[in-house]
Amino acid sequence: MRIYDLIFKKREGQPLNQEEIAFFVNSFTKGEIPDYQASAFLMAAFIRGLNGKETSLLTQAMCESGTKLNLSGIPGIKVDKHSTGGVGDGISLVVAPLVAACGVLVPMISGRGLAHTGGTLDKLESIPGFRTNLTQAEFLSQMERIGVAMIGQTSEIAPADKKIYALRDVTATVDSIPLIAASILSKKLAEGCDALVLDVKTGCGAFMREKKDAVRLAQVMADICKRSRKKVVVLVTRMEEPLGNAIGNGLEVWQAIEILRGEEKRGTESFIELTDVLGGWMLFFGGKVRNSKEGRAKISEVRKSGAGLKKFEEIVRSQGGDPEVIQDPKKFFFRAPIVKEVTSPWKGSVSFINARSVGVAALLLGAGRENQDSVLDPSAGILLAKKLGDRVERGEPIAQFFYSPGARFDEAEKVFLAGVKVGKLRPKPHPLIHQVIR
Amino acid sequence: MRIYDLIFKKREGQPLNQEEIAFFVNSFTKGEIPDYQASAFLMAAFIRGLNGKETSLLTQAMCESGTKLNLSGIPGIKVDKHSTGGVGDGISLVVAPLVAACGVLVPMISGRGLAHTGGTLDKLESIPGFRTNLTQAEFLSQMERIGVAMIGQTSEIAPADKKIYALRDVTATVDSIPLIAASILSKKLAEGCDALVLDVKTGCGAFMREKKDAVRLAQVMADICKRSRKKVVVLVTRMEEPLGNAIGNGLEVWQAIEILRGEEKRGTESFIELTDVLGGWMLFFGGKVRNSKEGRAKISEVRKSGAGLKKFEEIVRSQGGDPEVIQDPKKFFFRAPIVKEVTSPWKGSVSFINARSVGVAALLLGAGRENQDSVLDPSAGILLAKKLGDRVERGEPIAQFFYSPGARFDEAEKVFLAGVKVGKLRPKPHPLIHQVIR
Repeated sequence: MRIYDLIFKKREGQPLNQEEIAFFVNSFTKGEIPDYQASAFLMAAFIRGLNGKETSLLTQAMCESGTKLNLSGIPGIKVDKHSTGGVGDGISLVVAPLVAACGVLVPMISGRGLAHTGGTLDKLESIPGFRTNLTQAEFLSQMERIGVAMIGQTSEIAPADKKIYALRDVTATVDSIPLIAASILSKKLAEGCDALVLDVKTGCGAFMREKKDAVRLAQVMADICKRSRKKVVVLVTRMEEPLGNAIGNGLEVWQAIEILRGEEKRGTESFIELTDVLGGWMLFFGGKVRNSKEGRAKISEVRKSGAGLKKFEEIVRSQGGDPEVIQDPKKFFFRAPIVKEVTSPWKGSVSFINARSVGVAALLLGAGRENQDSVLDPSAGILLAKKLGDRVERGEPIAQFFYSPGARFDEAEKVFLAGVKVGKLRPKPHPLIHQVIR
Repeated sequence: MRIYDLIFKKREGQPLNQEEIAFFVNSFTKGEIPDYQASAFLMAAFIRGLNGKETSLLTQAMCESGTKLNLSGIPGIKVDKHSTGGVGDGISLVVAPLVAACGVLVPMISGRGLAHTGGTLDKLESIPGFRTNLTQAEFLSQMERIGVAMIGQTSEIAPADKKIYALRDVTATVDSIPLIAASILSKKLAEGCDALVLDVKTGCGAFMREKKDAVRLAQVMADICKRSRKKVVVLVTRMEEPLGNAIGNGLEVWQAIEILRGEEKRGTESFIELTDVLGGWMLFFGGKVRNSKEGRAKISEVRKSGAGLKKFEEIVRSQGGDPEVIQDPKKFFFRAPIVKEVTSPWKGSVSFINARSVGVAALLLGAGRENQDSVLDPSAGILLAKKLGDRVERGEPIAQFFYSPGARFDEAEKVFLAGVKVGKLRPKPHPLIHQVIR
């Protein structure tokens, strides 16, 4: 088999078979296909597309390129949750302990922040001492003991994805739905879980700005999971304003702890709704309830009971974090040297808060990475004082900015305010969940 | 300007402007764009296409990437001819001296054989001592003295084309009409001639098998020339059976000398027709006749007069070749150690001779290159004894194979015979010239 012939075939829009896709993935991962041929192949695949079978085969081949976690020794149904990335989307921090508290196994492998969006690993690492790089033995042992673990992807998991993504990143072939789906799921399928609950974000703060693209991605991901015999549900959800009030790594952990304590503050309604719905599906797949609606009610109940917080504390302890964060989160997560209020130049009702602008502003304050060498400031971020529909007076604070000397406050404020709209009328409420795809 | 943005733009099918195309060509030639980005760009250009303006800009930028010959010091109109490559297409060897004998300047830069097709340089180099690698000074001096020179492309001419072609060759992006047109014409425009007569071959022996592709290529090339203010005519011509009787480097020079001597043997009718027509256009552009038809008659007259042979002898002498080849070509070009007849297993009328099969058979005998390291045998090749429409008896010779020990005769014979069809009825005559595009 020659890569030339595969490039030719894909260029002509012909579908590739299992042997051909496996040849590309394996040979490229082993370094036997030069980058210039792989990039021509990826561009052809980008433009001509991959059908459902090809996308599934690509996902499988990328998954098989590395080690897979074997959780079969641990009795019970394993369920994971994944989001395509949003702003202020710290739901994993809350839903994983809640679902685990209900007795469903949650082996969660997360990623880091990308562009203007946050990443679960970065958030967890703002807890002093918290280790996301558990060894496989530590991971399995923790799963057995407390039924949940939250770690990062190791280099042994789907190495093909890492190599292919790096090439896509510099050759304008990232935003292809089949390639995105294969990249996400090649890692998720390597986790060895039985069911997946996927949250595909859409809107100005998401990578998929257009709903139709998000729905298509959701369909493709659902299809891959079904072809791999995994139970799956994909929710297409709104990412126009940030989910909760907190944006920034430490601030989001603080907010997660508050919510796990059962608090329901103004501004966190969408965060809580999505937590309950996603968790409800996880409980359903885990066999703990008869349907997702019952699951949602159960998650809500457990959230208010504080049982999730207890489970979160177990995770923190088990992964080397300081358990004192549970009792006094403000002490740990509100320690940015500078806190400055951003006030409204307008009077009226908040009619729009652009999540992407807020994400970029938080990044400029130090909460995200501008490039691969950027160092995160775990204390940096934004706390929103106003959310969509809130009344605001001229000069009244809309948000608090947390940062350290050297951060670009002025630029952040400008970007932030450019994303806020204040009008005369209260905006119409929008649905949080656009579509549920199974 | 970033190559990433250009890849993105072309991926989305958007046209690129002059600065963008020049940036790609110049930065890639200088080694400032890595191959993996260039190949992604070329694949996007391949699939999305380039419009007329983009193709012309690409050609110009590739042309400008190196030195251009300056023939402005030599008074007179300079006209060149180029063919996209066929089997037994030694017309350049004949038409260049004929046109030069009529007083039109012919600065001809040719290429080598590619795949199953022959190349003018390889043919000329079968003349003992003949140098195709003249220095620029030698080239100009010869143009002044005898009005014609036949040389190879130097590394200084259109280096961008060489680099881009090498990458296209391994990334399945060769057969794109705009990229082919830009590649051919970037070199031709660097020659500094005033007019071009182009012969685009189509049929089983051509790179463009389909007539519609050949016509499209012809239109694109004509458009580029016009945008570059060069006079141009493009003939789309039939390449189903080999043009003359000879296929192979030395054998084709022998046949060219015979034709320049005024001979018109059975089997060379198409060769001679095309020579006269192409030469007629060259004379027209050179201002020697009122139209191409008059030019055709003039070429025919000069061909029969032997004046072209005299000019060919001048070329041979001037470029270091042994002038004795003119007097006794058989002595020089019929010296393959083995000559074997291939006989017909059938009786009837020859209804098809597949030029590609004949080209591949000649290659297997040593007349072409299987890979970059292959060494040509200048004496190897095929002389056809039968052509389309000829009667043949069972056991009667169809061709003579010329080769050296070690050549793959058996395989060559098999390939050759697989391309020959003998039927009951004489085939209908087909037009040689499909279309004339200006």
